[in-house]
Amino acid sequence: MGEFELIRRFFAAAPCAQTAAGVALGIGDDCALLQLAAGEQLAVSTDTLVAGVHFPDPCDAFLLGQRALAVAASDLAAMGAAPLAFTLALTLPAAEAAWLEAFARGLGQMAHGCGLALVGGDTTRGPLSLTLTVFGRLPAGLALTRSGARVGDLLCVGGSLGDAAGALALVLGQQQVEEALAAPLLARYWAPQPQLALGQLLRGKATAALDISDGLLADCGHIARASGVALLIERERLPLSPALLAIYDREAALNHALAGGDDYRLAFTLPAAQMAELQAAWPELTVVGRVEQGEGVQLLDAGGRSLDLPETGYQHFRP
Amino acid sequence: MGEFELIRRFFAAAPCAQTAAGVALGIGDDCALLQLAAGEQLAVSTDTLVAGVHFPDPCDAFLLGQRALAVAASDLAAMGAAPLAFTLALTLPAAEAAWLEAFARGLGQMAHGCGLALVGGDTTRGPLSLTLTVFGRLPAGLALTRSGARVGDLLCVGGSLGDAAGALALVLGQQQVEEALAAPLLARYWAPQPQLALGQLLRGKATAALDISDGLLADCGHIARASGVALLIERERLPLSPALLAIYDREAALNHALAGGDDYRLAFTLPAAQMAELQAAWPELTVVGRVEQGEGVQLLDAGGRSLDLPETGYQHFRP
Repeated sequence: MGEFELIRRFFAAAPCAQTAAGVALGIGDDCALLQLAAGEQLAVSTDTLVAGVHFPDPCDAFLLGQRALAVAASDLAAMGAAPLAFTLALTLPAAEAAWLEAFARGLGQMAHGCGLALVGGDTTRGPLSLTLTVFGRLPAGLALTRSGARVGDLLCVGGSLGDAAGALALVLGQQQVEEALAAPLLARYWAPQPQLALGQLLRGKATAALDISDGLLADCGHIARASGVALLIERERLPLSPALLAIYDREAALNHALAGGDDYRLAFTLPAAQMAELQAAWPELTVVGRVEQGEGVQLLDAGGRSLDLPETGYQHFRP
Repeated sequence: MGEFELIRRFFAAAPCAQTAAGVALGIGDDCALLQLAAGEQLAVSTDTLVAGVHFPDPCDAFLLGQRALAVAASDLAAMGAAPLAFTLALTLPAAEAAWLEAFARGLGQMAHGCGLALVGGDTTRGPLSLTLTVFGRLPAGLALTRSGARVGDLLCVGGSLGDAAGALALVLGQQQVEEALAAPLLARYWAPQPQLALGQLLRGKATAALDISDGLLADCGHIARASGVALLIERERLPLSPALLAIYDREAALNHALAGGDDYRLAFTLPAAQMAELQAAWPELTVVGRVEQGEGVQLLDAGGRSLDLPETGYQHFRP
């Protein structure tokens, strides 16, 4: 048995590979088989993480396993899909048992937390990279797309912004702070929690949604373009965590929230009539702006005056 | 707009990205949406090809695009699934327009031939590799797995074997033959035709099936293990193409057919009562052996005597 055959057996035995509802056949044949209920659609998304581009190399294998699946699962949250399963294509320079054990443990923990079953994949030799394809279930017609925002809707986010961008300097070792301060930000970088429950809550309510990966400004630009509207963001409304403000001054924290990335919070547009009920169900929900006629994204100060946009184009990790 | 945004637009405009039956939402949102008919299951398979490991680097981008999708789609054929869609995760050191144009053309041609719609993916910067995830539809309960072979069944293959393995020396430039001789073998290496129609024909008839990627002997070992039976292969029955025999003597050709790989023909077990009808529908169908009690794979000569197995463990391309 080659070392790569060993890897396959290793993942096949992982707890996240257990057969789940909706999985008719898991790992081990030419294909996995997924089953939907009547009237359901399957949501599919693929994400690749390359060592040295999307994460530091070397890095902690447990954390990498967590983060890789979280990033991929966040796309299911953005569509309002219920988590079902995923495949993992893992390319490795060599098979090291300790690395694999830690990676599979991190992956398994996130899979368990998200409710995603590992149903297949591929293991190949080469420069370290990972491609995950995630699957979710949705009642037909209820997917949250980017294109439905309407003039008059409120612009909302599902929680504090900028934490992961604020953590990046710590991840890269460019900044040192005491561990108690660093830990909560690092957790938001390495183990973002895909807002799967929120996404499902927004079905039939939000008019447009996505998950913030490139930064609020850049991602709101995607909604504005797809929906043919303008999004106005009120800078002073952006929710900032105590953890971020413990390390950065308010100005720097706001810039992380606007132009940073890797938040994996949902951003969405919502008719005002939906607000009260949703905010009761999801207390972290924060209104950060509104939809108007026009195009693109505008940033407003507390007095409603237009501000220059900070430089965007967050590039995630780059060595 | 960054160069990678350009790539995304490029693929979004490719003919293979057209919305097809079963694709409720294609490229451009957080997820694609697939739709099944009542009573159907979704077959899913993921394959990674790494430059320098699974294909020569550099290589012709058009041929790479064809081959990458064919290899992935062959897993759908092996389950008896009807082709539906695929995602492409493409990792590239740089975005070169000519390379991308040729690659997308090769990919699009194979996608069109197979009936697969490109519904999403990811484009990242890094060492060249491709991960494709393919999706097919199947009536629930009719998937061809590896585990149903029964004592008394015939062992069959869907066409000539060994061509791609025979082409490898040409691909690697280790052997030179005139172009008219090389062309048909090289076509079998670079553009294998996934046996999707045959797979669907075998639904409800074959008791076990897979596609031959590691060589007949190794892959029959998978069926034998999964089904708890022994597979007997009669060496003189192996179908060899005129193209293979034009370059190799019969002994070398038989070794390519047994221990080579990359055939992407289906191998399957079939109750004898099914033979006549299937052979009428698929003239290339060839009986190469039978299922008996026991375990593992045995190789027999024309007189039914057991032969030593040639060395297996075909490693596909390796520099």
